[in-house]
Amino acid sequence: MQKIIDVTELALRDAHQSLMATRMAMEDMVPACADIDQAGFWSVECWGGATFDSCIRFLNEDPWERLRQFRKLLPHSRLQMLLRGQNLLGYRHYEDTVVDRFVDKAAENGMDVFRVFDALNDMRNLRRSIAAVRRTGKHAQGTICYTVSPLHGTADFVEMAQKLLDIGCDSICIKDMAALLKPQPAYDIVKGIKEACGEATRVHVHVHATTGVTLVSLMKAIEAGADCVDTAISSLSLGPGHNPTESLVEMLEGTPFTTRLNKQKLIKIKKYFAGIRPRYKEFLSNITGVETEIFDSQIPGGMLSNMESQLKQQGAADRVEEVLLEVPRVRADAGFPPLVTPSSQIVGTQAVFNVMMGRYKVLTGEFADLMLGYYGETIGPRDPHVIDLSFKQTGKSPINGRPADLLKPEWHELRDGAVALEGCNGSDEDVLTFAMFPKVAPQFFKARANGPKNLGKDPNAAPAPVVAPPKPAAEHGNGNGNGNGAPHGPALYDVKVNGKTHKVLINQVQ
Amino acid sequence: MQKIIDVTELALRDAHQSLMATRMAMEDMVPACADIDQAGFWSVECWGGATFDSCIRFLNEDPWERLRQFRKLLPHSRLQMLLRGQNLLGYRHYEDTVVDRFVDKAAENGMDVFRVFDALNDMRNLRRSIAAVRRTGKHAQGTICYTVSPLHGTADFVEMAQKLLDIGCDSICIKDMAALLKPQPAYDIVKGIKEACGEATRVHVHVHATTGVTLVSLMKAIEAGADCVDTAISSLSLGPGHNPTESLVEMLEGTPFTTRLNKQKLIKIKKYFAGIRPRYKEFLSNITGVETEIFDSQIPGGMLSNMESQLKQQGAADRVEEVLLEVPRVRADAGFPPLVTPSSQIVGTQAVFNVMMGRYKVLTGEFADLMLGYYGETIGPRDPHVIDLSFKQTGKSPINGRPADLLKPEWHELRDGAVALEGCNGSDEDVLTFAMFPKVAPQFFKARANGPKNLGKDPNAAPAPVVAPPKPAAEHGNGNGNGNGAPHGPALYDVKVNGKTHKVLINQVQ
Repeated sequence: MQKIIDVTELALRDAHQSLMATRMAMEDMVPACADIDQAGFWSVECWGGATFDSCIRFLNEDPWERLRQFRKLLPHSRLQMLLRGQNLLGYRHYEDTVVDRFVDKAAENGMDVFRVFDALNDMRNLRRSIAAVRRTGKHAQGTICYTVSPLHGTADFVEMAQKLLDIGCDSICIKDMAALLKPQPAYDIVKGIKEACGEATRVHVHVHATTGVTLVSLMKAIEAGADCVDTAISSLSLGPGHNPTESLVEMLEGTPFTTRLNKQKLIKIKKYFAGIRPRYKEFLSNITGVETEIFDSQIPGGMLSNMESQLKQQGAADRVEEVLLEVPRVRADAGFPPLVTPSSQIVGTQAVFNVMMGRYKVLTGEFADLMLGYYGETIGPRDPHVIDLSFKQTGKSPINGRPADLLKPEWHELRDGAVALEGCNGSDEDVLTFAMFPKVAPQFFKARANGPKNLGKDPNAAPAPVVAPPKPAAEHGNGNGNGNGAPHGPALYDVKVNGKTHKVLINQVQ
Repeated sequence: MQKIIDVTELALRDAHQSLMATRMAMEDMVPACADIDQAGFWSVECWGGATFDSCIRFLNEDPWERLRQFRKLLPHSRLQMLLRGQNLLGYRHYEDTVVDRFVDKAAENGMDVFRVFDALNDMRNLRRSIAAVRRTGKHAQGTICYTVSPLHGTADFVEMAQKLLDIGCDSICIKDMAALLKPQPAYDIVKGIKEACGEATRVHVHVHATTGVTLVSLMKAIEAGADCVDTAISSLSLGPGHNPTESLVEMLEGTPFTTRLNKQKLIKIKKYFAGIRPRYKEFLSNITGVETEIFDSQIPGGMLSNMESQLKQQGAADRVEEVLLEVPRVRADAGFPPLVTPSSQIVGTQAVFNVMMGRYKVLTGEFADLMLGYYGETIGPRDPHVIDLSFKQTGKSPINGRPADLLKPEWHELRDGAVALEGCNGSDEDVLTFAMFPKVAPQFFKARANGPKNLGKDPNAAPAPVVAPPKPAAEHGNGNGNGNGAPHGPALYDVKVNGKTHKVLINQVQ
C-alpha cells in the first residue's frame, strides 16, 4: 500500500513568475486548463504573488477577472494563491479591515487555498489574514519562510509550525524561495513538525530548483512524512523555477510513495507550454543552469540580478564581489531576516549603498523602517548603532508592537480615492486593486476597456530589422568596388540587424 | 564520522560529449586542469568514448598526444577512460592482440582507470580487455549497462556484478547512459551488489541527467553504499549531460556522507567553463530541460534526434510517433539489448526502416548482424523469424560463440596499412588510430602537422551572414515598387540571414 503524495502545480503562477518575470498572458494559459484540471493535482496555484501587479502593470488584465476565469476553467481543482500576510499583494502593511475585505473578495471570486507568509516570519503579521481565511471556510495554509542563519535551527521552524497551528492554520507550508533547503534539513524539519504537532498535521513543501539539490530535498521530505509538494510542469521548470512535475512522478516509482497524477495529461500540458515558453524569450531569466554559490551568499537569484543592475547603473559593475560580501553583514545587522520579497530587496539595496557610499552612510527609507521595526520582529536582535542611525535619519521612533496596529481605518478613504478614478467600476475589487497599487491602478482603470495585452511574441517571426543607412562602396549611380555599374553587379553593404553590423553582399539577380 | 563519497569529474570527456557533440578542443580544457587536479576528485574522466574519433575527425588533434598532455597537466589525479570492450574506441570487434596492444599503449601514455563496457552486457566481449588492464597493473572497472525491460531485474544486474568480479575487475560501475535509473532501483541494485559481493566491493554509479530524477538516484545509491559517483561541473552539466558536481557536494551536507571536494576550486572550474561553453553554441544539444518520455520509449536523447533527422531526410518527419512505437518492438525482437552505442543506432535505424518500408522488409547490415549474433549474446531470445530473414538477406549464418573468436590475427596487416599512409609516424599508437578509424586516419595523418583546430567561436562575433540572391520588386536598372529609380529611392529586398528571410528596406543615402 503506497502513500499518496499530493502535488500542487505551479505552472500558472510561480513558474512563470520565476522564469519569465510573471509576464504570461491569461490567453496563453487558457488552452492548458482542461488538462491541468483533469491531471489529478491537489491544488493549482494560479493567483497572488506578483501576478496581480503584473496583470495591471504590464498586461492590461483585470486580476479579479483572471481569477474568475480560472474558477470557470478549473471546475474540479482547488485554486491556490500566495498571500503576503498583512501586505496582501502590495508592498506595505494594510489596516486589518482591508485585509479582511481582500480575503473575502478572493474567496468570493473562487479562491480555495490561501498560502499566507510574512517575510520576517513574524506571526503577528499573519494572524489577521489567517483568521479572515478561516471565516470564509476556505483552506488557510500557514507558511514558514525557510532560511539559513546562525539563529535558524530545526527547532525554530518546528516551533513556528506549532504557532501557526495554534492560530488555526489548516496546514503548514515550508517555503524555500531561494533553493537553500538541503535534503537533510528538509527531512529533519518535516519529521520535527510531524513529531511535535502530530502525524495528521498536513505539511506542504515548496522549493525552487536554483541550486540543483531540491528534488532530493523533496524526496527526503516525502520520506519524513510530507503530504504535498510543489512542482511545475517540465517545460516551465528548472533554473530559478521549480522541479519538474513529471520527474517527481517518475522519481517515486518503486518507492512506498506515489502520486495520483495522470502521465498522459502531464505530457499534453508539457507539450503545450513548450510551445508557449519561447514566446516570452525576452523575459526569460538568464539563470539556466544551477547556482550553488547561493548557499554561501544566501542571495536568491532574482536579488542578485537586481543588485547587479543597480551597480551597473552607477557604473560600478566591478564591485559586485564586495556587495556579495556585504549582504550577509547587513543581514546580520538587521537580525537575520529571511531574504524574500520585500526583505531581499531591502537588504540588497542597502548592501549596494554601503559599498558605494560607505557603510550606513546613507540608509534607504525601507532599510531604516526594517531596523526600526516597521516591518515586524526579526529572529535576532538588530544592531543598536544602526537602529540609532535610522532614528536620526528618519525621525521615526523604533517600535516593538505589531506594525498594522499603528494604522487607522482606511477603507473609506481608499474607496473614495478609487471611485474618483476614470474607469473605476466602483466594486470592492477595484478599491482593493487601487489600495494595493495606487500608482498603477489609475492608468489601468483608464485603459482596462482596451482589453488584455499579450507580450508574448512569435519566436519564429523575423525581428523587425533595423537597417542602418547603408554605406555603398561608391556614390550612388556609379560603379561599386568591382567596377560594375550598380545595380548590375554585387554591392557590399553594412546592414545592421538587431544591433549587429553584418557585411552583406547583395547580388541583384533580376 | 561521515563516510567519504568519491567523485569522478566528467567535464573533460562525457560532459562535453553529451552537451556539445564531443567538440571541445584540448586548448579550451588546459586552463582548467590545475584546479581540477587539486579539487580532490577520485578520478578525472578525460579520454575514450567518442573523444578519440572527434579528435581525428574534427579537431585535427592527436588523441594520444591529448592523453599525454592530460597526464602532465593532472599529475595528482587518476586519469579515467571509457572503453567499449572488444570494440575499443571503434565500431567493430577487434582481434584479441589488438585489444591487448591498445590497453598497453593507453596505460603507457598515462591512463589509470579503464571503465570497460559492452553494449549487450555480454561478458565474453569484456574478458580480454579486462585481462589486459589487469596485466598493466592499472584499475580495471567492469561496467553494467543499466536498462529497463521485462527481462532486466535487480537480480540480473547483481549477477553480472558477480561475474565481473570473477574475471578480476577492481570495481563495478553501474552505467545509466539514458537517465533511466530511478531512485529505488538505484538503491536496490547497489544494495544487492554489496550484499552479494561483499561490502568491500567498490561500486561506482554513472548517471545522465536527462530525465531530471537521477540526482535523487545518486542520493539513494549513496545511502545503499555506493563508493563513487560521477558528476560534471555545473557549467557543463544537466540536459543530456550529468548532475552538477557542486549540487552533489551541497546535497550531502548534514547527512552521514561527505565528499573530499574543495568548493573554492569547484567555483573556479565552474566559472572557467561557463566562459567556454558559449563558444560551442552551434554544437550544443537542443535538449535543455528534462525529458521524462524517455521512461516510456526508452529512447535516449541522442538516439531520438538521430531518428528524427533520418526521417526528415526522407521527407517523413511526421512519422516520428510511429517510429517511437516501433522502437520497443524492434528492441524486443532483438532480445532486449540495452540502448547504447552502437545498439541504440542499430535498433533506431531499423525502426525507421520498418516504418518507412514495412516491418523488416529491408534490414540494415548492422541489424542483421545483431540478429545473427555478430555483436554478441542478448539477455532475451531473438525472434527466429527475423533471424531467418537476416540469414536470407546476408547469407551469413547465425553464431553463438564469442564474435572476436572469428577474427584472425590482424596486427601485422593493420601495421602495414598504417605505415603506408602519408604522415604516419610508425608508432603503435598510429597503427591503433588507423585500426579504429581506417577511413578517417589517412586524412588525419596527412594533416596532423598543421596542428589542432579549435571549433569554438567567440559567441559575441556576428555570424557570417548568408545572403540569398535578393528579389527586388522590379527588374534591375528600373524603378522599384515605389516608382523611384533604383538606387536613388528605398528598395525592398528579401535578405536571408542564417536561414531566416527578412524584409529589408535599404535606403541608399548617398
